[in-house]
Amino acid sequence: MSVRPLDTVDVPSSDALRLRTLGIDTHDEHVVYMHRDCHVCRAEGFTALARVEVRLHERRIVATLNVVDSDLVGVHEAGLSTSAWRALQASDRESVWVSHAPTLDSLSALRSKIYGNRLDARAFASVVGDIASGNYADVHIAAFLSACAGGRMSLEETVDLTRAMVGAGDILSWGKTPIADKHSVGGLPGNRTTPIVVAIVAAAGLTIPKTSSRAITSPAGTADVMDVLTRVDLDTREMREVVDREGGCLVWGGAINLSPADDILIRVARPLDIDGDAQLVASVLSKKIAAGASHVLIDMPVGPTAKVRSASDADRLQVLLEQVAAAFGLQTSVQRTDGNQPVGRGIGPALEARDVLAVLRRSPDAPADLRSRALKLAAEVLELCGDSPAGTGEARASSLLDSGAAWAKFRAICQAQGAFREPDVAPLIDPIPAGRVGRITAIDCRRLARVAKLAGAPNVPVAGLELHVRLGDLVQRDTPLLTLHARAPGELAYAKRYLASHPVVSLGPVEAP
Amino acid sequence: MSVRPLDTVDVPSSDALRLRTLGIDTHDEHVVYMHRDCHVCRAEGFTALARVEVRLHERRIVATLNVVDSDLVGVHEAGLSTSAWRALQASDRESVWVSHAPTLDSLSALRSKIYGNRLDARAFASVVGDIASGNYADVHIAAFLSACAGGRMSLEETVDLTRAMVGAGDILSWGKTPIADKHSVGGLPGNRTTPIVVAIVAAAGLTIPKTSSRAITSPAGTADVMDVLTRVDLDTREMREVVDREGGCLVWGGAINLSPADDILIRVARPLDIDGDAQLVASVLSKKIAAGASHVLIDMPVGPTAKVRSASDADRLQVLLEQVAAAFGLQTSVQRTDGNQPVGRGIGPALEARDVLAVLRRSPDAPADLRSRALKLAAEVLELCGDSPAGTGEARASSLLDSGAAWAKFRAICQAQGAFREPDVAPLIDPIPAGRVGRITAIDCRRLARVAKLAGAPNVPVAGLELHVRLGDLVQRDTPLLTLHARAPGELAYAKRYLASHPVVSLGPVEAP
Repeated sequence: MSVRPLDTVDVPSSDALRLRTLGIDTHDEHVVYMHRDCHVCRAEGFTALARVEVRLHERRIVATLNVVDSDLVGVHEAGLSTSAWRALQASDRESVWVSHAPTLDSLSALRSKIYGNRLDARAFASVVGDIASGNYADVHIAAFLSACAGGRMSLEETVDLTRAMVGAGDILSWGKTPIADKHSVGGLPGNRTTPIVVAIVAAAGLTIPKTSSRAITSPAGTADVMDVLTRVDLDTREMREVVDREGGCLVWGGAINLSPADDILIRVARPLDIDGDAQLVASVLSKKIAAGASHVLIDMPVGPTAKVRSASDADRLQVLLEQVAAAFGLQTSVQRTDGNQPVGRGIGPALEARDVLAVLRRSPDAPADLRSRALKLAAEVLELCGDSPAGTGEARASSLLDSGAAWAKFRAICQAQGAFREPDVAPLIDPIPAGRVGRITAIDCRRLARVAKLAGAPNVPVAGLELHVRLGDLVQRDTPLLTLHARAPGELAYAKRYLASHPVVSLGPVEAP
Repeated sequence: MSVRPLDTVDVPSSDALRLRTLGIDTHDEHVVYMHRDCHVCRAEGFTALARVEVRLHERRIVATLNVVDSDLVGVHEAGLSTSAWRALQASDRESVWVSHAPTLDSLSALRSKIYGNRLDARAFASVVGDIASGNYADVHIAAFLSACAGGRMSLEETVDLTRAMVGAGDILSWGKTPIADKHSVGGLPGNRTTPIVVAIVAAAGLTIPKTSSRAITSPAGTADVMDVLTRVDLDTREMREVVDREGGCLVWGGAINLSPADDILIRVARPLDIDGDAQLVASVLSKKIAAGASHVLIDMPVGPTAKVRSASDADRLQVLLEQVAAAFGLQTSVQRTDGNQPVGRGIGPALEARDVLAVLRRSPDAPADLRSRALKLAAEVLELCGDSPAGTGEARASSLLDSGAAWAKFRAICQAQGAFREPDVAPLIDPIPAGRVGRITAIDCRRLARVAKLAGAPNVPVAGLELHVRLGDLVQRDTPLLTLHARAPGELAYAKRYLASHPVVSLGPVEAP
């Protein structure tokens, strides 16, 4: 038991851990998997929620530790979740260094908000910056969302949050005005007006650089639908070239880093089922401001299964949207639309693409509701941007659509993005009859979306369903309510089994509704 | 394309998934791992935070879905986190059924609290019941903690939360009064007064059925220390037999289901670093009420690295503790103690057990600070329970300790729990010298705890450290500041390496402090 000064102590030269691919997708939350007998686990007290820093070359991430008791990872190994793997640009068997996570300065701002204080612009920037960088665990993000909900955000704070979200990513600048954009508050299957609106607005000579998301929980996002028709994973430079040439684009936002914190906040807000007004407004507007928009139309479906459920909710949200937009010099118009039933016929990427093409091509069987909604929204954009005097936008939009100008513009945009291609058709197609006589009194949008997902959408682009009925329709026993589209018998069976126990339409008496 | 009624459709008879052991410890959050091509993943929209219900025989849990892209699990398999595996009492290769998680009614109460409303007793009962049942994801729990912090809980709500936490587990009843208990608000390494207090109080003839926790983030919990000396994993019936025979016990609370939601809340609150008064009070008191206590002493160390950092924080917390306790007819006494440096000498299960034994055995080298703190707390319990008139408790406690009555009682309790055994000693023991001359001006409790954990505590019971100095001590270059205890050279090296770059004591000039 000799007493030696510390500097002569023989310590291991490195505590590197060797990486192992696990392929576990925890979505955006970075997770590192380490064996219980690993020294870092010991240092962190064997607790599953410890936060650690993982370093690979010059790259660093903060991750949540999950402790492993099996041979999934060895004591000198570390596994990474898919997001952590991607963030570190890791390769199998590389060495990482794991240490105690640095204290995040922004957590004191988060705590301050939890304790009911107002935050300033600098505090929001630090919190949102850490969220965008992946430094927060999901529990931190949940606490932030909770602390900002329930009327705890002043108008000034909502503006500051929006600005922080814009500042956490790239900002596009177009050097001219107006730059048009549109957004749907969401919740309605098949509400695929965006490709039609962009085609009409760009055909009118306006600039509309549209980025869209893929589906998170729905059977299709606009980016999934466009992916059927052309290439969508353009980077910022490519997107700019398309817009310079055609006045518009329809690309996936995932390859363009606009308001990246937004996607992370949305992901955590969903299981909590809280959609605080401040967060919703900051979410919508930050994406548009970052995209360089000057004039934004917001489609707000109002209905029992839509995101906005009542007129009073819509009123409150509209006032806040307009106030925050005004703080950024953004012109906005909020258009409330019917949110009681799906739009168009198809639900699923290729099936929705077919509806879009049918409208653009003026096919006789084009869904009238999709056409009419798209025309109304396009008209509003044309008037908002000063292309058309008030009251004349719809005539102008109709003429651009009916003349074929919008269809020509749409093909030109697809060509500029790579190529235009026709949607494929699913190998398995199976109509589902009503089974009895009746009148359609309600359509459950949530269940319809689930059926389309069970059939394979959006991962299988051709999968989904066609809905053949609308509210008020009279059906006979053999009338098909919907037709399932699938790639494999198993997927078709899953969708049918769900349908057998979960009716998606309500049938009332035959008498007029 | 024939139209067949649904009931004739050929669907698979089952969507069972076969279980695979993964050994991933996500702590209390249930996680299920399923392949991306699994139909349930599809139905949930490929999102990592989906909540699903997993059913095995008659048992059901709600779990968070993690999507797997590798062969970690097959498309017809499901992996479970350790907690989920335990909750389902699963065996390898058994079949489970996975479906969409039922909507939890209590989430509307959670949302109501997030939106700033007051909750009633029924609402708290539903939220806490779902937390205790493992139905909440960590993000829900984080949102709940956030919504209840920052002065958002009235006294009545704090009482209702406490009652809900008591009601979510078992409640012990002893059929007599007083039933004594003690609790330390925590944060001080080595503050292992509980075994001594229980021995003295039981030796006085009072009833003190003490349950304790294992370490969560510290190098030792009271249950870890007692585990060195006797058996601690008694069930409720065994615990009752010990208390009936000896008047006291010192068991691990983990095998006794008292306020189970508390442990879950604490785990999520820690990474958030929020310790709302309401949650702290409900946490402390719910455990005591569920244990059937009538008289509770609360040790509240106040100091810069303790949980309670200032006199004003202590004041506020004390008032709330007393008010909530009164609502349950619980007699309480809050004792503020010095929270500026560790207590005793050892840090780690066996080393702390040795300190406890030294005090009980009246060894000449017993740590005076541990003895004196234990006597003060025991005195307070004796007076609170009416055993001793005010002002005489300390003399009575001292006499019970000095006479050997407490030591005899302690051994008897250990025998009743199974057997008494002496602590082992670590094979590797290494003193760390000061390295220079100086006077101790500060001791970093947090870093000391980390050193003890790096050396192997609490997983290796004999591991940890002995601290040889106290504030104000003068040290020479060769004076050992502390001695490391470890089982393996690697663990010793980790602790030394950390010490080399993270000083745990501050040395000031030699002049008097």
